[in-house]
Amino acid sequence: MNPPLRIGLAGLGTVGGGTLKILREHAPMLAERCGRALEITAVCARDRDKKRSADTQGLRWVDDPMALASDAQIDVIVETIGGSEGQARALVEAALTNGKSVVTANKALIAHHGIGLAALAEKSGAVLAFEAAVAGGIPIIKAMRDGLAANRFVRIAGILNGTCNYILTDMWVRKRGFDEVLAEAQALGYAEVEPSFDVDGIDTAHKTAILASLAYGIAPAIDKVHVEGIRAITLRDMEFADELGYVIKLLGIAALTEHGLEQRVHPCLVEKSSQLASVHGVYNAILAQGDAVGTVLFEGRGAGAGPTASSIVADLMDIARGALYKPFTLPVSALKIPSFADMAQLHCSYYLRLGVVDRPGVLAEITNIFKAENISLRAVVQHSHKPGEVVQLVLTTHETQEAAMVSAMRAIERSHSVREKPFMIRIEAL
Amino acid sequence: MNPPLRIGLAGLGTVGGGTLKILREHAPMLAERCGRALEITAVCARDRDKKRSADTQGLRWVDDPMALASDAQIDVIVETIGGSEGQARALVEAALTNGKSVVTANKALIAHHGIGLAALAEKSGAVLAFEAAVAGGIPIIKAMRDGLAANRFVRIAGILNGTCNYILTDMWVRKRGFDEVLAEAQALGYAEVEPSFDVDGIDTAHKTAILASLAYGIAPAIDKVHVEGIRAITLRDMEFADELGYVIKLLGIAALTEHGLEQRVHPCLVEKSSQLASVHGVYNAILAQGDAVGTVLFEGRGAGAGPTASSIVADLMDIARGALYKPFTLPVSALKIPSFADMAQLHCSYYLRLGVVDRPGVLAEITNIFKAENISLRAVVQHSHKPGEVVQLVLTTHETQEAAMVSAMRAIERSHSVREKPFMIRIEAL
Repeated sequence: MNPPLRIGLAGLGTVGGGTLKILREHAPMLAERCGRALEITAVCARDRDKKRSADTQGLRWVDDPMALASDAQIDVIVETIGGSEGQARALVEAALTNGKSVVTANKALIAHHGIGLAALAEKSGAVLAFEAAVAGGIPIIKAMRDGLAANRFVRIAGILNGTCNYILTDMWVRKRGFDEVLAEAQALGYAEVEPSFDVDGIDTAHKTAILASLAYGIAPAIDKVHVEGIRAITLRDMEFADELGYVIKLLGIAALTEHGLEQRVHPCLVEKSSQLASVHGVYNAILAQGDAVGTVLFEGRGAGAGPTASSIVADLMDIARGALYKPFTLPVSALKIPSFADMAQLHCSYYLRLGVVDRPGVLAEITNIFKAENISLRAVVQHSHKPGEVVQLVLTTHETQEAAMVSAMRAIERSHSVREKPFMIRIEAL
Repeated sequence: MNPPLRIGLAGLGTVGGGTLKILREHAPMLAERCGRALEITAVCARDRDKKRSADTQGLRWVDDPMALASDAQIDVIVETIGGSEGQARALVEAALTNGKSVVTANKALIAHHGIGLAALAEKSGAVLAFEAAVAGGIPIIKAMRDGLAANRFVRIAGILNGTCNYILTDMWVRKRGFDEVLAEAQALGYAEVEPSFDVDGIDTAHKTAILASLAYGIAPAIDKVHVEGIRAITLRDMEFADELGYVIKLLGIAALTEHGLEQRVHPCLVEKSSQLASVHGVYNAILAQGDAVGTVLFEGRGAGAGPTASSIVADLMDIARGALYKPFTLPVSALKIPSFADMAQLHCSYYLRLGVVDRPGVLAEITNIFKAENISLRAVVQHSHKPGEVVQLVLTTHETQEAAMVSAMRAIERSHSVREKPFMIRIEAL
């Protein structure tokens, strides 16, 4: 048997602990599947005495993660520290510079600094692998790079953040508002105390930028992702969506259109019959559309110790087996700088909810605004209400350009009949 | 750039033509993604003058496929001839013996002779790749071998034959019988004139044996797959299943249980809410359950020129990039001979439909038979009927052993109250 692959494990939290657990409990199976052992040479975590889910007996502890990067007994570093800067970035840069391969689940690091890191890896001949950075246990990175690599990608659309999907699912199932569900999710540890990364769509944007880079041969362009989160979604919108045949999901979408590359993260109405509509709770799912293969769906757990560690160890196995792929498929020098589509050029259907006063002529006024923008309406819903109340008027449109929709919304906002800021959600045809 | 990968293409039918189309139309993109060109050096098909979907201009034609196996201008052979014996087998054996890598979509060949072929590949240092052999465009082989490789697999369950899924879907949607739908599918070219491979479950068995070999590190054991097809399924069963909250699907299942390795292909009742229940028409889907990752779903087109060629070209790209994996993950000498579970030891719930005479005491007689076998009933359905008619009595059980169920069915068959052979379908909890 070949010499073992010697692993330095930086961080022993949920993900690091899960990785340790698989490496220890499945050691013989992994060694057989790789033709060599996966051996943990050293670990580094803030507190040596903390109780861990996995057995840490007999492990060599290092206090400074940077020491792992220059440790002659280490071939590969597993980085589970997190964050796009600081220790995580410094460690990964140092390791790759020293020719040590790196496996990470750190989507923020890859989305922001992936290209610089890939260049370091290319230079030193190391591997940089990040299957666990997108959609946890779903092997979507490998699918884009290998399994579906013969395709020109038409669109990638995914539910990429389990916290958001959990909140949206729970709001609907238990008929509760966003704030209430978020507070409970925080109390249960499903959502962070500082939830912005998740609920404002930033985490989904990181993952979308990574998927777009693999699909379209570009450097991850996180600053070119249009990002909206789910804070503004109300139970009322979910009820209207349901009535119209839709559910509301936060999607990350990358697509190549005549106007350039679209990268966008925002809540979407998706048809109830679509495959993404039935992805509930903390599950993630990705629809990859290729010109040859058609649409392929991948669905599974997007976070948690087991799923994330499953992908980290799969990357370690790739490295143990001698895989030498480029992190972004193409050499860094071959990555393209695409032209990005402007959101104003987006072509889709829209859901619009308006709080209007109930008096004669209001609907005529509003429909005339749409007519002036050449936007064709698909459905109108308004329920009976008590006299004097502001009434919720919901409209959906046929496909139109976002520029026209924005212009119509501005005109609507100026109307004296409209008492609340119009609330728009895009309808994504899947 | 590195020298091109030189490809010999044997067969230019649907799959071969689709492969040619991708290789020609995406040549620059593929070359960029692989760091070298994928070049078609020679093709071989029965009729040179037949009109093809892809452009064959400028290709070197060879009359005898065996000539490709010894052609010094060829690095890799794509075999799309089909069949587990004859030309296909001879060509693949000769090519691997000569150190030429082989890419094939031929599940019958791999299920029956995969190990012998893998041994030839190992000896000569060639690659044998067959992503397209299971579930068309879904990269499930790579997922089992790479992306999910850190897992001990609990169960693999899949809809692996598009023809069967199309027939079952169409029977239900259009309320028609098996024979009628099959005849129409044959007229439309969706089903073969000799449909046995598909509708009797043989094709699904080939694919199940291949997935089991990858999941459990064994040689494909096609003779150890329990196989039942869909010919006996009636619209009436679908209606009862619907009433009870299920749909009927033909599944291929591999699972490691306390009784040994299960490999089985048979119609199943699956809950309407399960992910496989909503896989319609010619689509394929696989649920892979791993101990770390949980359940991952893969869904996509299981056949057709584009999806199958997508997987074939992905395999060619692997080879072009220098991948050197073992066809069945482990070296041939390391593959295990497992103990297989007997169907009598299967533990699941059952659906049973009986044609009984309508007279007092019949239900008591039948429920007493179940009681004697210690089988607990879950649901009983019987509809009103015209006097004197044989009435359909449907029962579902809680989990029990198949041996007990078989014994109960024998006792039921002996009853004078039962006028038709009892019809059983297993209920698969997913």
